[in-house]
Amino acid sequence: MEFSAQSIADLLKGTVEGNPDIKVNNVSKIEEGKPGTLSFLANPKYTNFIYTTNSSIVLVNKDFKAEKEIKATLIRVENAYESFANLLEFYNSQRHHKSGIEQPSYIDETAKYGDHIYIGAFTYIGKHVKIGNNVKIHPQVFIGDNVTIKDNVTIFPGVKIYYDSIIGNYCTIHAGSIIGADGFGFAPTDTKDYKKIPQIGNVILEDYVELGANMCIDRATMGSTIIRKGVKLDNLIQIGHNVEIGENTVMAAQGGIAGSTKIGKNCMFGGQIAIANHITVADGVKAAARSGIAGSIKTEDAIVMGAPAFDIRQFQKSHIVFTKLPEMRKQLIEMEKEIAELKKKLDS
Amino acid sequence: MEFSAQSIADLLKGTVEGNPDIKVNNVSKIEEGKPGTLSFLANPKYTNFIYTTNSSIVLVNKDFKAEKEIKATLIRVENAYESFANLLEFYNSQRHHKSGIEQPSYIDETAKYGDHIYIGAFTYIGKHVKIGNNVKIHPQVFIGDNVTIKDNVTIFPGVKIYYDSIIGNYCTIHAGSIIGADGFGFAPTDTKDYKKIPQIGNVILEDYVELGANMCIDRATMGSTIIRKGVKLDNLIQIGHNVEIGENTVMAAQGGIAGSTKIGKNCMFGGQIAIANHITVADGVKAAARSGIAGSIKTEDAIVMGAPAFDIRQFQKSHIVFTKLPEMRKQLIEMEKEIAELKKKLDS
Amino acid sequence: MEFSAQSIADLLKGTVEGNPDIKVNNVSKIEEGKPGTLSFLANPKYTNFIYTTNSSIVLVNKDFKAEKEIKATLIRVENAYESFANLLEFYNSQRHHKSGIEQPSYIDETAKYGDHIYIGAFTYIGKHVKIGNNVKIHPQVFIGDNVTIKDNVTIFPGVKIYYDSIIGNYCTIHAGSIIGADGFGFAPTDTKDYKKIPQIGNVILEDYVELGANMCIDRATMGSTIIRKGVKLDNLIQIGHNVEIGENTVMAAQGGIAGSTKIGKNCMFGGQIAIANHITVADGVKAAARSGIAGSIKTEDAIVMGAPAFDIRQFQKSHIVFTKLPEMRKQLIEMEKEIAELKKKLDS
Repeated sequence: MEFSAQSIADLLKGTVEGNPDIKVNNVSKIEEGKPGTLSFLANPKYTNFIYTTNSSIVLVNKDFKAEKEIKATLIRVENAYESFANLLEFYNSQRHHKSGIEQPSYIDETAKYGDHIYIGAFTYIGKHVKIGNNVKIHPQVFIGDNVTIKDNVTIFPGVKIYYDSIIGNYCTIHAGSIIGADGFGFAPTDTKDYKKIPQIGNVILEDYVELGANMCIDRATMGSTIIRKGVKLDNLIQIGHNVEIGENTVMAAQGGIAGSTKIGKNCMFGGQIAIANHITVADGVKAAARSGIAGSIKTEDAIVMGAPAFDIRQFQKSHIVFTKLPEMRKQLIEMEKEIAELKKKLDS
Repeated sequence: MEFSAQSIADLLKGTVEGNPDIKVNNVSKIEEGKPGTLSFLANPKYTNFIYTTNSSIVLVNKDFKAEKEIKATLIRVENAYESFANLLEFYNSQRHHKSGIEQPSYIDETAKYGDHIYIGAFTYIGKHVKIGNNVKIHPQVFIGDNVTIKDNVTIFPGVKIYYDSIIGNYCTIHAGSIIGADGFGFAPTDTKDYKKIPQIGNVILEDYVELGANMCIDRATMGSTIIRKGVKLDNLIQIGHNVEIGENTVMAAQGGIAGSTKIGKNCMFGGQIAIANHITVADGVKAAARSGIAGSIKTEDAIVMGAPAFDIRQFQKSHIVFTKLPEMRKQLIEMEKEIAELKKKLDS
Repeated sequence: MEFSAQSIADLLKGTVEGNPDIKVNNVSKIEEGKPGTLSFLANPKYTNFIYTTNSSIVLVNKDFKAEKEIKATLIRVENAYESFANLLEFYNSQRHHKSGIEQPSYIDETAKYGDHIYIGAFTYIGKHVKIGNNVKIHPQVFIGDNVTIKDNVTIFPGVKIYYDSIIGNYCTIHAGSIIGADGFGFAPTDTKDYKKIPQIGNVILEDYVELGANMCIDRATMGSTIIRKGVKLDNLIQIGHNVEIGENTVMAAQGGIAGSTKIGKNCMFGGQIAIANHITVADGVKAAARSGIAGSIKTEDAIVMGAPAFDIRQFQKSHIVFTKLPEMRKQLIEMEKEIAELKKKLDS
């Protein structure tokens, strides 16, 4: 796709300064600008680059004043950063604009779907599934029986959604993720083997949830595993059965939350964190990457680190001493000797 | 699916007390009971809820004595908890009762399969594959050449099983898991790049193994990676080439076992544990979540924690001191001063 | 597939000693040899086994001298180990020799592909995709719009490659891996929820990259996430947006690299390591399994361990003291008492 400076200015309600017919087909950072690309200048630190950039078009704030000649065509807008973000969003929405039902696909005759939908080839839609309007289901997706998918949802290739799951409005699920597989529930028997505990609950994603690639959310044993509105979960994350995650909580890649744990809203979790089962984490808690939260955190907005995790500043201080433990041990042994000598002297 | 109190009582060999025609289509905890659902009462702690629950039906032990009026219809059974578990199992088996071969699917003409099987749409079955009786292979599964799948196996959507793998009786594999991809074997060359070591072994799952979603078991370099009878592995786990896991060992999500390691039977591993390559772990060993087992564990039933892991009680004690290291360091510096003063005094 | 001793000798340019017509269909370790299999003897430690092995054929070095009678047929070659490796490679290449386009598959009419290709059933190939020669794309793979796949690439079942990605020559991608899903980029808003930052860059794999199963490489926010020539990444790894990994770096399973980090060449990372975002790791760095690299490492060939990671020998020394912290604490308390007593004595 190519866009002219004029068409971009029209879209962003900006004004062109230079060649309105020059065309771009990609974006670049202003400091790495190439012909045929569009950049933006928002941070004053980068102002120098506008005089040397090879980008064909640069978005600038309305009040930007050039001090030297500029090769690029400028588009003046109210807020260059926001306009750039809006432009990317528009560009992305154009790219992903697929529609219709590709063949071969498998749609059970009892399934229902709304308007403006895309169903990719090799996608499977089971019995009594309900799909809303403006939903894009890419190729090779599996939607199990009785699943509900609300409006404006995007599901990337290869996602598998088990029966009874509910996917809220404006959710996005990236490729390969698994929603609603059985929770890990086995009861030990007298003969040291295990009996499966049937997992008959479901998974509910509320609105505006975004899930990364190849991650897993287990169905509840009974009741629901619930991901509240606005939660964002990165790739390769594991969410156990009956977990509840509060609104707008975000978690970076490869973290895990064990069964029946309840996480507050507005929490932020770094990569590869682990949260134990059957605990509660208060609203606004932050945990550094690799933290292992082993017990409930009741203090809102607490910031923790380590495994088991505790207050991040305490952890960092402890870790500094940890790196010096061998010296500290030597010191201790030295001091023992000195005390022994002092005793000897004193007793003699 | 809806069931009447009478039909449930017949199934469980119980007796109805109340309306035999009342119907339920789901289950709930007694304390969260809703009309149209069935609950059970087994733990005496929950007895009070039976007088207030909105569940339509409650399973109770034969000898339960009501002290007040009860709104719900009761079904009296020998053991309410066991009956409930059996009911869930029955319910689940009904839900998953799919059969036949959906189209389009790809089944090589040299593949063989038994009776009462289900093969979902978009599933691929390669050359010389052997599939037993009562096997359910959901949509979008890949079964490579020469794979053997025994009886009563369930394979959920999107599982990929590479060539030569053997899947035992009564195994369950959840969505997206990969069985038999190449082990991570590369030999360094003189030019600092790597030459691939061909991985020509296979993977064997014995009977009653259950695997979670999006997990991986690598094929052996030579010989077999072996998962013994009754092993249960959770989501996103990594099992390296030539690993052997003993009977009835269980591992929670996101753990990993590196190549050629041999794990005993009846072990229990928490989430996100790591086990090094070429080591041996004795029978009955337990490791807390996030443990890193770096060397062989020869003591049966040992319980470990930490990374590198050691005895859990020792670890917990060490960790308590770790959280106080900065104070301990201050103390040490203080004592050094005192010793120096004592010396001075004594010498003067 | 069965091969006679003579045909194997011809392939390896070796000479047969024994029955040239004896046939094998598999390989085994010499100490576990079974009839119908081929073994090799390279390490003198294993020489004794050649007199007792049940393998039908054993590859030996040209100058091997038998001291007793040998049951197996021998094939004498220049270098038994190398010949064995070559044989495995040949065997593997024969096994994977699939070709043609299976049906049903979905290939957009604007896609182009070269000679000697294999496209498995249920594979989806989008608009303007370019595929080179000798490429094998197994079943159920997704190739998004504008993806380029160069020559001699193998893509195993269920891999999903998002639009605009570029896959270099001789790359191998194992089952279920996701290339080019969105980076985890969200900007917080005033209302405590998040606005998605469009991810419009791509992923580039240079030549000879091998990726394990169910791993993820995110597309760049802008520009490219780049995996340089010869990199090998194991199963369940997470590579964030805009990461760059230098030539011939290898990483074991379940590790993660956060966004915008630049890794040098010839690095080696153990399993489950974590590397923070926006940092730089020098060439030749090694990190032990479970390390958490929290800041840039500027020293080439540094070897680190721990989380946060530091010099491996220092870490190991600190960890030894860590295991003894409770005793050390007791010692400290004991010493405090002694100092107090000394003071008392001295003051009295």
